[in-house]
Amino acid sequence: MQVTSRYRFAAAHRLDTPSLSAEENRKLYGKCNNPFGHGHDYILDVTVDGSIDPNGLVVNREAFDSLVRSAVLDKLDHKNLNADLTEFGSTVPTTENLAMLVRDYLLAAWNLPAKLVRVRISETERNTFVWEAA
Amino acid sequence: MQVTSRYRFAAAHRLDTPSLSAEENRKLYGKCNNPFGHGHDYILDVTVDGSIDPNGLVVNREAFDSLVRSAVLDKLDHKNLNADLTEFGSTVPTTENLAMLVRDYLLAAWNLPAKLVRVRISETERNTFVWEAA
Amino acid sequence: MQVTSRYRFAAAHRLDTPSLSAEENRKLYGKCNNPFGHGHDYILDVTVDGSIDPNGLVVNREAFDSLVRSAVLDKLDHKNLNADLTEFGSTVPTTENLAMLVRDYLLAAWNLPAKLVRVRISETERNTFVWEAA
Amino acid sequence: MQVTSRYRFAAAHRLDTPSLSAEENRKLYGKCNNPFGHGHDYILDVTVDGSIDPNGLVVNREAFDSLVRSAVLDKLDHKNLNADLTEFGSTVPTTENLAMLVRDYLLAAWNLPAKLVRVRISETERNTFVWEAA
Amino acid sequence: MQVTSRYRFAAAHRLDTPSLSAEENRKLYGKCNNPFGHGHDYILDVTVDGSIDPNGLVVNREAFDSLVRSAVLDKLDHKNLNADLTEFGSTVPTTENLAMLVRDYLLAAWNLPAKLVRVRISETERNTFVWEAA
Amino acid sequence: MQVTSRYRFAAAHRLDTPSLSAEENRKLYGKCNNPFGHGHDYILDVTVDGSIDPNGLVVNREAFDSLVRSAVLDKLDHKNLNADLTEFGSTVPTTENLAMLVRDYLLAAWNLPAKLVRVRISETERNTFVWEAA
Repeated sequence: MQVTSRYRFAAAHRLDTPSLSAEENRKLYGKCNNPFGHGHDYILDVTVDGSIDPNGLVVNREAFDSLVRSAVLDKLDHKNLNADLTEFGSTVPTTENLAMLVRDYLLAAWNLPAKLVRVRISETERNTFVWEAA
Repeated sequence: MQVTSRYRFAAAHRLDTPSLSAEENRKLYGKCNNPFGHGHDYILDVTVDGSIDPNGLVVNREAFDSLVRSAVLDKLDHKNLNADLTEFGSTVPTTENLAMLVRDYLLAAWNLPAKLVRVRISETERNTFVWEAA
Repeated sequence: MQVTSRYRFAAAHRLDTPSLSAEENRKLYGKCNNPFGHGHDYILDVTVDGSIDPNGLVVNREAFDSLVRSAVLDKLDHKNLNADLTEFGSTVPTTENLAMLVRDYLLAAWNLPAKLVRVRISETERNTFVWEAA
Repeated sequence: MQVTSRYRFAAAHRLDTPSLSAEENRKLYGKCNNPFGHGHDYILDVTVDGSIDPNGLVVNREAFDSLVRSAVLDKLDHKNLNADLTEFGSTVPTTENLAMLVRDYLLAAWNLPAKLVRVRISETERNTFVWEAA
Repeated sequence: MQVTSRYRFAAAHRLDTPSLSAEENRKLYGKCNNPFGHGHDYILDVTVDGSIDPNGLVVNREAFDSLVRSAVLDKLDHKNLNADLTEFGSTVPTTENLAMLVRDYLLAAWNLPAKLVRVRISETERNTFVWEAA
Repeated sequence: MQVTSRYRFAAAHRLDTPSLSAEENRKLYGKCNNPFGHGHDYILDVTVDGSIDPNGLVVNREAFDSLVRSAVLDKLDHKNLNADLTEFGSTVPTTENLAMLVRDYLLAAWNLPAKLVRVRISETERNTFVWEAA
């Protein structure tokens, strides 16, 4: 059985690749290249897979929420992805890269018996990004 | 092709495992252990898989709705899961166990040509539980 | 300017009026009269009206949330309205009466400079109840 | 990594299979067989799968949107599926068949490095139809 | 206290004013002027105002739903507004005119003690139309 | 009759009042005071009031959208409110002040026969701000 918990965080970012010219960046990222950044209310869905224990749970809710909060939300919520996160010094904070970072954060801190199988981030209701365990 | 139909039902429940002490139950289930129960508006998504027939349908809508209504909704909607359902005499009505019960209800009554492949229940917009056919 | 904050709480209730017969209650409240109760995820919107202060705020967010939490959510969330609340000893916990109770709770604890002008509760996405200040 | 973009289009349709009698059509399709048609606001989710390029993207947003717009939305948005689309001359415009048509439209025009892996259409919030690449 | 009930219906329409030329109609209504029509899933919110009776209700739920169903939904759901409704013989089925028609339907059938105070129709999530009693 | 159109824009902001100390700002605005800013997907609802013209419209859709786009969205979408907007040089970009700015932008550009009666901005689904014409 899979259990998914939903979280939200607000963050600012600017998309700009150093190896491209100013004009190439504007063309590639459009409005997301605006110099001073902009922001989103990201929705994060974290999914685990496991069997149901005698208490009827695949995962302890409090432990799950606590892990996501300390490993992910405390680092991203109400932050500027470009300025506040060293991980985005050399990589662009697209939501693709953000989803991989969240997966890395989660795997590094993972201490739950259930397996992490999916990380899903919606940048807006129009764009969703999913990483799934092989 | 997969077809998913969405249904809703309202129910009350209380999470409490007899083999645990009162304090262990409070710690494990938090507010969900409150003595007199509380409730939710559950969202149920049932997914079938099959090929498209000459009438353009994977499944007859009326037969599908009718089966889910009689096999599941009539038993769960506006009920107290602990008090109204004998199935939750010895197991705790967590949404994990509720999803398995809904799957059992559906499989026992299944008479459609398409295959039942997924049962998904949201307890709230923050928690979702999925069973998928192997 | 009006500012509205949204909150959620889960609760169980049963609709039954002592002065009516069992059959009259079943007819009047339908499935909501089921003996052991059922539950909902209520959405609560609280609206205040006021002018914008030099810090750009109509109301201090933390004070607003804190007041609603202690005056309302701590009393209603994950509770059984019939069994846990003495206020529903003699009145039926319809969402109409629940909205008036929330208004009373808020007015009794109100200590904010902005004026409380609206209490809105959705029982489900299909039913909404609004009290507005005269 | 999978990236999903969401689009919307409004269209009218009527469900009626020529090989069935008027009464059989009414019984099979219910209200969807009403003679003059009715309509929906369809939600279309298109999912691609690919690796993240050095610019942090699985797929160029503008190229993706542009392809879906010209290959799908321009043909379906604000149209009558029965009257405007020759593809529904001999097949019934159920959402099952519509999803397959959208997949065909997309595959015929596909020029993106990422792979098309899923087409998902919601007719209403109650019915969803998914085609997935084998 | 105000109580709002939400309903949904699917319908097709085409916007075209006989007194205008074909080109003027195309310019005025855009894609909504497409010859064979298109459709929407309309959301209808009906609001009544009244006092709470001893049973805790502003309005009897079953009577309310029944009135809206027979007076409005049975006439509009899964219909083509232009072809099925004589009321749109001489007026254009914009959502503005549709909202006024729904109000007229409701007032003509009204038999509830609470007062009808608002009719709200969303054509899509982007456009909403409201009539309010003076 | 009132007609409401919904728009979306993404922007970054930081809440910080120059006349307050660093500690007072942190206490007053909480996480919204983080030095490098964060962002939101704002939802903007603009409401006009007017009578229905012979073409069935309270307001011409294209003119309405065009006015909001040029007067508001082009200035705010994918921008950093603090750095890109001179209006927020001396005032804090709270959503209260942002709503007033949007109203000012709209009134300065207003050229529609219907009257502007309401501006509503949601910062997140938890906070909504409304200005209404007196």
